Amino acid sequence: MTATIILRNVRPLGGVPTDLVIRDGRFAPPDPERDGAIESIDGQGLLAIPGLVEAHTHLDKNLIGMPWYRNEIGPRRIDRIEADRREKQRLGIDPRRQSARQVMQTLGLGTTVIRSHVDVDTEIGTANVAGVLATREAMRESVDIQIVAFPQSGMLIRPGTVALMEEALRMGADIVGGIDPAGIDRDPRAHLDTIFGLAERFGKPIDIHLHEPGELGAFCLELIIERTRALGMEGRVLVSHAYCLGTIEPAAHDALAAALADSRIGVMTAGPPGRPAPAVKRLTEAGVTICGGSDGPRGTWEPYGTGDMLMRAMMIGQRNGFTRDDDLALALETCTTFGARALGVDRYGLAPGCDADLVLVDAETVAEAVAAPPVRRLVMKRGRIVARDGIALQTVPAA
Amino acid sequence: MTATIILRNVRPLGGVPTDLVIRDGRFAPPDPERDGAIESIDGQGLLAIPGLVEAHTHLDKNLIGMPWYRNEIGPRRIDRIEADRREKQRLGIDPRRQSARQVMQTLGLGTTVIRSHVDVDTEIGTANVAGVLATREAMRESVDIQIVAFPQSGMLIRPGTVALMEEALRMGADIVGGIDPAGIDRDPRAHLDTIFGLAERFGKPIDIHLHEPGELGAFCLELIIERTRALGMEGRVLVSHAYCLGTIEPAAHDALAAALADSRIGVMTAGPPGRPAPAVKRLTEAGVTICGGSDGPRGTWEPYGTGDMLMRAMMIGQRNGFTRDDDLALALETCTTFGARALGVDRYGLAPGCDADLVLVDAETVAEAVAAPPVRRLVMKRGRIVARDGIALQTVPAA
Repeated sequence: MTATIILRNVRPLGGVPTDLVIRDGRFAPPDPERDGAIESIDGQGLLAIPGLVEAHTHLDKNLIGMPWYRNEIGPRRIDRIEADRREKQRLGIDPRRQSARQVMQTLGLGTTVIRSHVDVDTEIGTANVAGVLATREAMRESVDIQIVAFPQSGMLIRPGTVALMEEALRMGADIVGGIDPAGIDRDPRAHLDTIFGLAERFGKPIDIHLHEPGELGAFCLELIIERTRALGMEGRVLVSHAYCLGTIEPAAHDALAAALADSRIGVMTAGPPGRPAPAVKRLTEAGVTICGGSDGPRGTWEPYGTGDMLMRAMMIGQRNGFTRDDDLALALETCTTFGARALGVDRYGLAPGCDADLVLVDAETVAEAVAAPPVRRLVMKRGRIVARDGIALQTVPAA
Repeated sequence: MTATIILRNVRPLGGVPTDLVIRDGRFAPPDPERDGAIESIDGQGLLAIPGLVEAHTHLDKNLIGMPWYRNEIGPRRIDRIEADRREKQRLGIDPRRQSARQVMQTLGLGTTVIRSHVDVDTEIGTANVAGVLATREAMRESVDIQIVAFPQSGMLIRPGTVALMEEALRMGADIVGGIDPAGIDRDPRAHLDTIFGLAERFGKPIDIHLHEPGELGAFCLELIIERTRALGMEGRVLVSHAYCLGTIEPAAHDALAAALADSRIGVMTAGPPGRPAPAVKRLTEAGVTICGGSDGPRGTWEPYGTGDMLMRAMMIGQRNGFTRDDDLALALETCTTFGARALGVDRYGLAPGCDADLVLVDAETVAEAVAAPPVRRLVMKRGRIVARDGIALQTVPAA
């Protein structure tokens, strides 16, 4: 006999009203014989969607709750990287405090799974990894957090960085990060050999930032595909941004998409309004798992947003020119089902056996929830109510 | 002696806290001798921005407050035009009721000036113009509305449309509309000669939808510039969307921009995330007035958004890759000052002599208000409080 929760009168993904049964933190079929004390929650006919999945953020360096940062940074990526490293220290961006603030804010907005890249460099060492690890531990009941050891400032161009990434992985980072093998490290082969080597030695997946444009990006993607296959890492590599997929010629695109699908390499997009972007529908039809990430909110790189993943689904829909209901549903999947698949999250969804992570909103259909994201009325993590009306219920973990 | 309002402790565009004096619905310098009874309002140190300007919407055919419309429309513009004409009737979209709903919703979000294209076609005739005229009259104290007689379904390809546009102008429409002289009407010269002819005869400005892509769009822009000059209509022509400016070669772009500036033709952009878009900064630097429009919200064309013009400033900033504070301020100007200039609105701004249209938000700087649009705490139209906390204070005018 275990305690059971019945969430009455909700509409899963806009379907007919139904009752969802939750037992031991998971959705379950009704089973009167096994059920003990029953707690009943009135779902008020609201639309239920699975907990939102944030596949790409930087928990350690947002500026939530800090004074407004006046951005006067130059236009190049390297200007931003340098400003980012400088300002982290000058502004005193505490990775523990700031990661907790962002996790709390986005929990209120329905995000129950997060993959965060966390800076590792020769100035801060692994302090940011330690900070986000502390937040992960403090909030483990409410949110699942994956940590990528991320060489934001470059890896081979800054000697000592690889050793720090190893340290981060030993501390508990889950994933090996990388960034622009050509544009930043100036040596695509050496960069990729190094991160795939780390992944092999530590038995960890890879998630690489790839901003490289056009044909250069396509070349780097080819190198990533070659190494994924050579090391048998199919299903364990994610490429973040992949702007190049938005500009290469259609024939080259389709060949690359087929190779990505075949080697089960996922793609993360923020649906960037001002940049070329991977085409969600075309890649999905080619069999590539494409997931959504906010890449924010509010930092020295980009000032925008709140980290809201339903808003991100909207942006991904708009970036892809989606207007039909079935396409808006696809946009939502990048921030739900596809996100879970890309991040290797098990037991995801609203079916019996899945973790009872869910969000209730006042919308008639999934398309409506994406087109104009409404207030998150209730958020649940493994059957426990963790937020109401946009606000997380727990207190911010002390730094 | 006239009644005076003092709005105490606000920060105009994020500047130092100050008191704004309002007399007879306009901002005024303090003048104790002339002031009679003084009403004082506590501005709580909030950021003050001028009333938001919506330079491009379609008040007559949103679906606000109606059952969710399941969009299964095909991908071509003509599919959308035909669905739009069909669904207007099938769904019973009442232009009077729906325009009032949208005006109320966006008034709550701080929009105090609206230019709306309103459909004129051989099926509905001028009924939609009549509906929006009624809403304009009912809400004249709260919002200024400009009406464009808009041949959405094509003009020359649907005989009788020009006569209906003339009727609309006689009824009180302020502006002559047009749409895709090549793509829809299949005859750029005849389309443009007709609408410029209407403008000349009725003494009205022009606002033309130009979705035509690339070089075709650039050609149509040239034809528009030629006619604007020939008829001495400098300063009285606005081109909406102008996607072509986002794809033509840089040299051709700069030549066109110079000609637009010289003939004082404005450009309206929605900051479309999924389409080529005019470059706000480059055009501004070339002397072109570029303003922002939502082109929405929630209709059969596009399901997105709420019509929020601060959110639109955010989208325009994102579409243009803006991250610096000065660029975010420029994004806001497209939805404030530049909008007023493009629409020929006099007495606009926070300076003495201007109409006291303003919005108060809880943000430290203009950039913060654009980066993550906050609740509109107070909205004022000509010195009268018309909305608080995102909600318009008057009741919806009865249809």
